Formats: sequence, structure tokens, C-alpha cells
Amino acid sequence: MQDALRQSHVGIIGLGLMGGSLALALRAHCASISGYDVDAGTLDQALARGIIARPIDLRGDQVDLLILATPVSAILDWLIKIPAVFFGPFHLIDLGSTKTQIAAAMQSLPTRISPLGGHPMCGKETSGLSVADANLYRHCRFVLTPLARTHAATLDIARELLDAIEARALLLDPARHDFLAAAISHVPYLTSVALVEATRRADDEAAWTLAASGFRDSTRLAASDVTMLLDILMSNRAGVLESLSRVQASLQTLAEAIQSGDRAALRAILEAARERRSTLFV
Amino acid sequence: MQDALRQSHVGIIGLGLMGGSLALALRAHCASISGYDVDAGTLDQALARGIIARPIDLRGDQVDLLILATPVSAILDWLIKIPAVFFGPFHLIDLGSTKTQIAAAMQSLPTRISPLGGHPMCGKETSGLSVADANLYRHCRFVLTPLARTHAATLDIARELLDAIEARALLLDPARHDFLAAAISHVPYLTSVALVEATRRADDEAAWTLAASGFRDSTRLAASDVTMLLDILMSNRAGVLESLSRVQASLQTLAEAIQSGDRAALRAILEAARERRSTLFV
Repeated sequence: MQDALRQSHVGIIGLGLMGGSLALALRAHCASISGYDVDAGTLDQALARGIIARPIDLRGDQVDLLILATPVSAILDWLIKIPAVFFGPFHLIDLGSTKTQIAAAMQSLPTRISPLGGHPMCGKETSGLSVADANLYRHCRFVLTPLARTHAATLDIARELLDAIEARALLLDPARHDFLAAAISHVPYLTSVALVEATRRADDEAAWTLAASGFRDSTRLAASDVTMLLDILMSNRAGVLESLSRVQASLQTLAEAIQSGDRAALRAILEAARERRSTLFV
Repeated sequence: MQDALRQSHVGIIGLGLMGGSLALALRAHCASISGYDVDAGTLDQALARGIIARPIDLRGDQVDLLILATPVSAILDWLIKIPAVFFGPFHLIDLGSTKTQIAAAMQSLPTRISPLGGHPMCGKETSGLSVADANLYRHCRFVLTPLARTHAATLDIARELLDAIEARALLLDPARHDFLAAAISHVPYLTSVALVEATRRADDEAAWTLAASGFRDSTRLAASDVTMLLDILMSNRAGVLESLSRVQASLQTLAEAIQSGDRAALRAILEAARERRSTLFV
């Protein structure tokens, strides 16, 4: 159905950076937005600033489209509570950073709810409603992970939503999403942590004095929110461990080439990585 | 001696980003600058743009201060050739990225030459004279690695030079420099390469589509010049291997905590890294 979004009452649970930015980007494109945040101050601020029109009533409420924009573990909790809070049929999209566990939990929802997994590949180093930004999703790659039970109308309204916020859809199977997200996001976080941790353990304060832009960029992810990342790592253990083992194997190959002084073998690996990396982000 | 630099004839070998930027920053602070580059086009450009006043005469020349601004392996070659090219006593400073091998090679110089190791912790992703920048060294941490044979006057003129280009001195022993540079620069390069390599080996083109700012930053170093990095890795094998083994151990600890689902152990490592990283670059 065309224009389903424009006539929809949208509920957003979680009014931090992701949920708050979505509300800002979406409010001109839907009938109304209600919201909820576990932090009462955040909910008050969202109301005061007109980011949402009204609070969701946890004793019973109605929406056409519900968005879960909390960390993964809270999404898993909400998937249990949602059927008792919201009446009637509705579309449900979550924005969780990992998809396999959430997709499994979605299978237990009553049939009146049509669930769809989502993961927008954007964000900021800082979090919270105060840094929410109506343009956060512009040109952002937005993964959608439909289930067999996802209604066609839910995928349609998701596409309308992505158009409205100017994000670009990529449909993936939940397991494939999690494996790829491990490779390009979760494991880079772990190498960032390991670089800081190893330098810390070297126990020479001069190291920090020497650190320049290379160290800054390659360890930026180590400053990420720990609770959110713990959720991600623990809900994507298989994907993370598989991808991490590939990185460990690659580091071991590099160590052996350096140890043996095999300049040709080393050059081949470094050139291949440089070539691949140079074509990205151009 | 105060003002030694102002009266000095300075020679710079290697007129790429580092040597070219140094000439631009230095020319108002010394008597004259002569230069040499193995690439004739670069040398012509440096002369045409007035970055250097005259070419160094490889059949015999005279300088008060000689700067070696080439990759490490070329510096090692020049240390052998220099005594036959330059007459009389002079100060010698190299800008090589690793210091132990160069310090050892400096021991064979005739006593009329007073050598001092240097490593400015700045640079750009691009290289060459065309991107040289008079402000490259401003606020840059500049490591100096004096030898027992380094004259006090050489350290004095080096400090004048750093003042002139607005860099900040840090004196380190060559071996300690190399170990620290491995931790904050050479090994971060290797983890960048391994992240790209592992993703490449995962053999799923969708991975590159998903890659966002986290992957961009944590793999930026993988786009570095391979020949320069090969020089660095091969001339700092001990430092790189020691630092790399710390990172490998840290990754293994992380893998085991994820495997066993030990959220508390994982949180402790992630929090410590986040805390340390958050106080850097502020």
C-alpha cells in the first residue's frame, strides 16, 4: 500500500540517539509519533521539545508501526512485554545491532504482530537524545532482515520509512548480517581494545605521548559505550568468534613473515590489503 | 651555541613530504638549504619552487647540518655513502621511522660527523613533494635519540631546529623508541591490514557495502605506502614482534571471555581500554 506510513501512528521505544533521531526525521512523514524511554528525564525532554507527540501508555496502547530503538538486551526484553502492551495488529521493526537472537525471539510473537529486523549502519561516538540529529540516517546503509513470517506490507512500510529518512535498504538474512557485522564492526572494536590494552600493559607512559593520528584512528572504537558493545558481543558470539579467528590467523601469518624475514610474502599481503582498502570510502 | 642554526648551511636528502615540508618550514631560519632527491623530477620541482636554493653536489659538497629524510633502507645506504660526499665536520640528523638499526649504522661514521637520530611523529596519508606543507611539523612530537657519540652542539642545533618548526622534543633511547613506535604505530598498521585481509577472505562482497565509519577509521593505516612500511617492519622486527605478541595475547583473552560467556571478565577489559582511550586526544 502506497502512503501507508503517512497515515500511520508510530510508536518508538528508546529515545536515545537512534530513536530520537528517527523521531526527528520521521515526524513530517507520519500521522503521529508516540514514544517511551526508561529514563523519565529523556521522555520529558522528548515531549518538551516536541520530538514525540505523546508518551506510550504501558498499561495499554495502540500503534500501526512500533520501532524498538534500544540496545539488544532491552529489545529482547521488550519482545516479551510488547503483546501485553499493544492491542490489535501492527508492524514491528527493531534497530538492534545484532539480528540472529532477535529474529529467534520474534518467532514467539502472536501472529497479529508482523516483525521485521533492521540495523541502520550509522551512529555517533556520543549517545543520548541530546545529540539526536534529524539527518543521522541520510545516505545511511540500513539493513533489513525479513523473517518468513514478515508480511509484505511490513516490508513496504519499512521501505517508505527508509525513503522518508533517506536511508538505503540492504536485505540480508539475520545470520549473514551478524557474520558481516562482526567482520566490519564488532571485531574492529576488539582490535581497538587490544591495541589500547597491549599498550597499557607495556607499562611505559611515554607510549601515550608518542601516539599520533594512526593510533587515534585505529583505537577510536575502544572509546565506545561498553554496555552496548557487551550486548552486541554476547548476542553475536558465533559471528564474532569466527571473524576474530580469521583476524588472528591473519596476524599470525604476518608475524611469521616478519619473524622469518620473508619480505616477498609480507609485501604480497600488505599490497593486497592496501589495494582493497584504497577502493573503499572514495 | 645560540643561533647556530641561523648561520648554518643545511642539506636535505630526500625531498618528499617530510624533507620538502622541513625545507619549507626551515628556509627562513637558516643560512641556506641545498637538497637532493633520487627522483630528478622532484629535485627540479624543489628548485623551481624555491623550496631549496641549490642541488647537493654528490661529487663533493659541504654543509653544516645534513638531514636524511628518506625511508629507512635508503637512510642506511646513505650512511655508507655520506663520508665520501660531504667534507669536514658536520651535524647529521635522520628522520627515519625506526631508530635501532640506524643508530647502529651511525657508529661506523667517521668522528668528524656528529650523528643524531630523529623521528617526527607526524605525516599524511599521501606522500611526495607536491603535498609538502610548511606547517606539517607544528605541534608535532619529535623524538630525538642521541648516541653516546652525539656532540652536545648537535643536540643544541636540533633543539633550535625543533623550535623553528614548532615541534616538541622527546628524548628516547633508540631501542625504547622502536618498541614504543611498534605499539602505537607499526602494530596498529598490522591490525588494520589483518582486518581488511580477514574481511577479504570472508569472500562476501556485501561486507564492503556495510562498512561504515568504524571500519574506515580502524583500517585507515592499511592504505599506507607498502614500501615504506616494509622498511619499518623489517628494521624493527624485535619491537614489532614483541608488541604484536601482546596484541595477540589480548585478542586471545577477549576470544576466551566471549567463548565462555564471561561477561564480567569481558566488561573489565573493555572498561579499562575505554577509560585509557578516553583520556587520549582530548
